[in-house]
Amino acid sequence: MKINSNYLNLEESYLFSTIARKIEEYQKENKDAKIIRLGIGDVTLPLAEEVIKSLHKAVDDMADKSTFKGYGPEQGYGFLRDAVRDYYGSYGAKLESTEIFISDGAKSDLANILDIFHIDNRVLVPNPVYPVYLDTNIMLGRNVTFIDANMENGFLPLPDESIPADIIYLCSPNNPTGAVYTREALQKWVNYALKCNAVILFDSAYESYIVDKDLPRSIYEIEGAKSCAIEFNSLSKTAGFTGTRLGYTIVPHSLVFEGVSLNKLWLRRQTTKFNGVPYVIQKAAEAVFTEEGQREIRANIEYYRENARIIAETLDSLGVWYTGGKNSPYIWLKAFDGMTSWEFFDYLLREANIVGTPGAGFGANGEGFFRLTAFGNRENTIEAMERLKRLRNRA
Amino acid sequence: MKINSNYLNLEESYLFSTIARKIEEYQKENKDAKIIRLGIGDVTLPLAEEVIKSLHKAVDDMADKSTFKGYGPEQGYGFLRDAVRDYYGSYGAKLESTEIFISDGAKSDLANILDIFHIDNRVLVPNPVYPVYLDTNIMLGRNVTFIDANMENGFLPLPDESIPADIIYLCSPNNPTGAVYTREALQKWVNYALKCNAVILFDSAYESYIVDKDLPRSIYEIEGAKSCAIEFNSLSKTAGFTGTRLGYTIVPHSLVFEGVSLNKLWLRRQTTKFNGVPYVIQKAAEAVFTEEGQREIRANIEYYRENARIIAETLDSLGVWYTGGKNSPYIWLKAFDGMTSWEFFDYLLREANIVGTPGAGFGANGEGFFRLTAFGNRENTIEAMERLKRLRNRA
Repeated sequence: MKINSNYLNLEESYLFSTIARKIEEYQKENKDAKIIRLGIGDVTLPLAEEVIKSLHKAVDDMADKSTFKGYGPEQGYGFLRDAVRDYYGSYGAKLESTEIFISDGAKSDLANILDIFHIDNRVLVPNPVYPVYLDTNIMLGRNVTFIDANMENGFLPLPDESIPADIIYLCSPNNPTGAVYTREALQKWVNYALKCNAVILFDSAYESYIVDKDLPRSIYEIEGAKSCAIEFNSLSKTAGFTGTRLGYTIVPHSLVFEGVSLNKLWLRRQTTKFNGVPYVIQKAAEAVFTEEGQREIRANIEYYRENARIIAETLDSLGVWYTGGKNSPYIWLKAFDGMTSWEFFDYLLREANIVGTPGAGFGANGEGFFRLTAFGNRENTIEAMERLKRLRNRA
Repeated sequence: MKINSNYLNLEESYLFSTIARKIEEYQKENKDAKIIRLGIGDVTLPLAEEVIKSLHKAVDDMADKSTFKGYGPEQGYGFLRDAVRDYYGSYGAKLESTEIFISDGAKSDLANILDIFHIDNRVLVPNPVYPVYLDTNIMLGRNVTFIDANMENGFLPLPDESIPADIIYLCSPNNPTGAVYTREALQKWVNYALKCNAVILFDSAYESYIVDKDLPRSIYEIEGAKSCAIEFNSLSKTAGFTGTRLGYTIVPHSLVFEGVSLNKLWLRRQTTKFNGVPYVIQKAAEAVFTEEGQREIRANIEYYRENARIIAETLDSLGVWYTGGKNSPYIWLKAFDGMTSWEFFDYLLREANIVGTPGAGFGANGEGFFRLTAFGNRENTIEAMERLKRLRNRA
């Protein structure tokens, strides 16, 4: 029996383990230091009240023979697919319920979608970016071509028509940079994909942080996108579902390659390899899309957005270059004084007891940059920014 | 962009849709007919009380900032991995917690495990069997070799040393035949796998229906299995979790191929492509493994087992050949009078208003056989067997 040797080509990521070790070592030597973690990529506020109510009710359904649910449809219950359709419709992306597939998260689907594509496809991946896009392709033995994101293009690269591509990853609002594509920029990507018959894999997991009405929350707000794009979304950051697990993937019926409907291929993949999301979790998600549910999760998102605003305002006042922070929970800043990402990590930990994430962990183009997030609590975020101001003014 | 054209080699399964259509047509023409469905492969009893209590408590955890859970470990929480380890230990299969990976079900893992194996491996699949084994290999472009299960070997084929194999699928108690391998027979498979350096993918999703102490519930009760076998288990049929979704896959540390630990490869696969099972669902599963939880789920299993006993007893009294029904929720019988599977389906529907599943739907060797299940309710199962007796005695 031979293993899939492509796995041996994966680089081990020591990003988060190295961060943890450095914090531990520092804390040991500086027992009184109050370290503030702004590197956290996970939500901290509890589930909304409407979601909790719906969960309790769904649990009771499972306790009674007459309302008990066994196997459900692999692609999700109609009540939830309809709710997602209406949510997209509310900001101008018109979808059919049968184009929406409920899953246990955007990460799983972003990995699993590669099942339905031919191994010979040429893949474009932005750099820096969420490491799953690259790793899942390496596991299949694919070389990928990087698209350079950098200060010059505001970490929002545009298509280069001289580079051929079949599969294109885009993430907006971006992880890790927080940068958000405009309609015009996304239209260029859609036009390019249509021209070279490529498919765009559009990760919109942070769309709920967009408040600027001019910015697109879904790629389906862009003309032509339903013929070239699959969109991946999630309730993880929208409704605090990182430990509750629910995402959805949109595969429009008009996506047809080599005469075959991608919607049908994905349905076949999911019915063969997946058994659907727990009924109680789908009921929890349904509550997110009710009027009261939306009001409650909005309050949580605004709490995080205010943290982001406080960070961005501080960087503005200090004249530090950054992207994100306005329509995104992430702030991506240039390390002070030409430091590398890790030098800046050590500097902030030592001089201000602040922890963030070194940008180099997201790809070579992340070197010299640093990610802060808005998922901490208010008091800590304010205190961290006061420390940052003192540190900068001292320097 | 090119699609994965292997998908075009999949045979569309019309098994369950054809069954549904035939029932609908018959009911339309025979409005008063009381049709009893014994083809159902899904549980019907609600979740156990301990599970419900644990779910409600876990939901409350998610409502409070101090107990809220965000991202958990992709491979499952320690409390649940420990509980599974102790469950296996209770019947003699000694495992470490780090060998146990919690997932959303055996079906997902049986499909996803193929990620870590080289495409060139030669695959053995029993026939008839659960269609996922075959379909997931076809999706990868693999040809599989079938192992003949039939009346002569009691639908429990043994290894044929003249056939080379790298990956071997076994399912015991079997779906669809209900047949259970003895220790001696499994030892032959383990010896064969060790000899030809193959890996066994052992599906034990129905192990909790085994009451005969002489029959193995886990392949790890067999000497040498920890060096050649991965086991897939699930709470679907054990605790009624078909709509609640939790399974677990066991990858022993001593499974090493080409110098690489399969446990490490699978961990890498899961951390990259999966984000774990919802916290509340893992807490539900934890309750299954408590003393009271085991007592309650046992009562449900015994309810289904009694249905199976009633069916088996009826077939015994009629002199009908079958497998299963004793340590399994499935009964696999020979169609009466040399009928094909579908002829027998039509005959039972028309003459006794009983619905089962045609064996031909599980592979060519299922032709002429028929699957009944124990997941219906008691009264219907008894009435169906009375009808079967009358039908047989009339013939």
